[in-house]
Amino acid sequence: MKHGFFITFEGVEGCGKSTQVSLLKTYLGSLGRDVVALREPGGTMLGEAVRPILVNSSKEPIDPWAELFLYEACRAQLVKNVIRPALLKEGTIVICDRFIDSTIAYQGYGRGLDLEDIADMNFLATGGLVPDLTILLDVDAEAGLKRASARMDSADGLREDRFEKEAVEFHRKVRQGFLELACVYPRFALVDGQREIPSIHKEICGIINDKV
Amino acid sequence: MKHGFFITFEGVEGCGKSTQVSLLKTYLGSLGRDVVALREPGGTMLGEAVRPILVNSSKEPIDPWAELFLYEACRAQLVKNVIRPALLKEGTIVICDRFIDSTIAYQGYGRGLDLEDIADMNFLATGGLVPDLTILLDVDAEAGLKRASARMDSADGLREDRFEKEAVEFHRKVRQGFLELACVYPRFALVDGQREIPSIHKEICGIINDKV
Repeated sequence: MKHGFFITFEGVEGCGKSTQVSLLKTYLGSLGRDVVALREPGGTMLGEAVRPILVNSSKEPIDPWAELFLYEACRAQLVKNVIRPALLKEGTIVICDRFIDSTIAYQGYGRGLDLEDIADMNFLATGGLVPDLTILLDVDAEAGLKRASARMDSADGLREDRFEKEAVEFHRKVRQGFLELACVYPRFALVDGQREIPSIHKEICGIINDKV
Repeated sequence: MKHGFFITFEGVEGCGKSTQVSLLKTYLGSLGRDVVALREPGGTMLGEAVRPILVNSSKEPIDPWAELFLYEACRAQLVKNVIRPALLKEGTIVICDRFIDSTIAYQGYGRGLDLEDIADMNFLATGGLVPDLTILLDVDAEAGLKRASARMDSADGLREDRFEKEAVEFHRKVRQGFLELACVYPRFALVDGQREIPSIHKEICGIINDKV
């Protein structure tokens, strides 16, 4: 059924994903490729409605399972309504900023929920769809947080800082989770995110040119 | 750990749950009982933020898995932040308008999702919490829909009519699901909802007086 190519970007807060997704989209567009760039949570009406609950700070602490279910809801909607239809078109490249691995890293390694339960839910939410390539932009947790705290506000003027406010130890566990996933799954490409933006972009273009 | 008593109300659209929850709350209050009355989705900041996505009509069709995950997110938050803390107080009665059985009936029997997958998620969302008593207000699907369509608007002026707009066949399957659950689990009390409000209330008070 699938004909397009599905790339995901993963990494801790402030690792530079959104900048690199944007550069890659422009680059692939300049080659005449059909590109769909998405982010999680988001990309659908449902996902954009849920996003502020997940990423903005709130007075009410969110239960880890509730957090997990909200991500999976956004994912199911995005896969069904956007990603799968896009991948049916031959030659289309779908780029998604965060996907199944973020849930393993954040809610599994970070929050301590059972990894198998999360894998089951990822499967149900995606119908088994797995990226063809996952770029892990690796930066150390402290460096990422420092960058993230310098980010601009979101469009509605609210800081998307709920995760940034977690202790650095949480972010270290998340990074460790990503690194372990990258060791296990051959679809991962590990990219050092602590360099200048253009050299990271160049490396990512090289990785992708070999595949699409 | 648990000392209070946990009652859920279930049934199809327009079966009269919210009216009966309200009457029961007043009755138990008049006996001097501590009563917490809740509804799903809702009862927390997260739940009330997600509620309009689930119950209001939208131009974007919602994927059945996304729908399921949103309900479980609201449930996890409600159980963790409200229901479990309330049940720790001896003598407290928690009444919830919809709970785990609605997910089996609507997303399982109605939408056709796998019943075991749903049961797994109900377990993860609730940490295994099961009601002490479930009142199933049984009305036939057509009668319920007729009543539901005469309901008042919600506070924000938007009709909570996403489920009402489903075909009557969907609601027949949902009712069938509830009836099958009531056959299987001894915690269910089946109450004929197609009678006058006061006689239904009287029957429910009798069931509850035997238990709390």
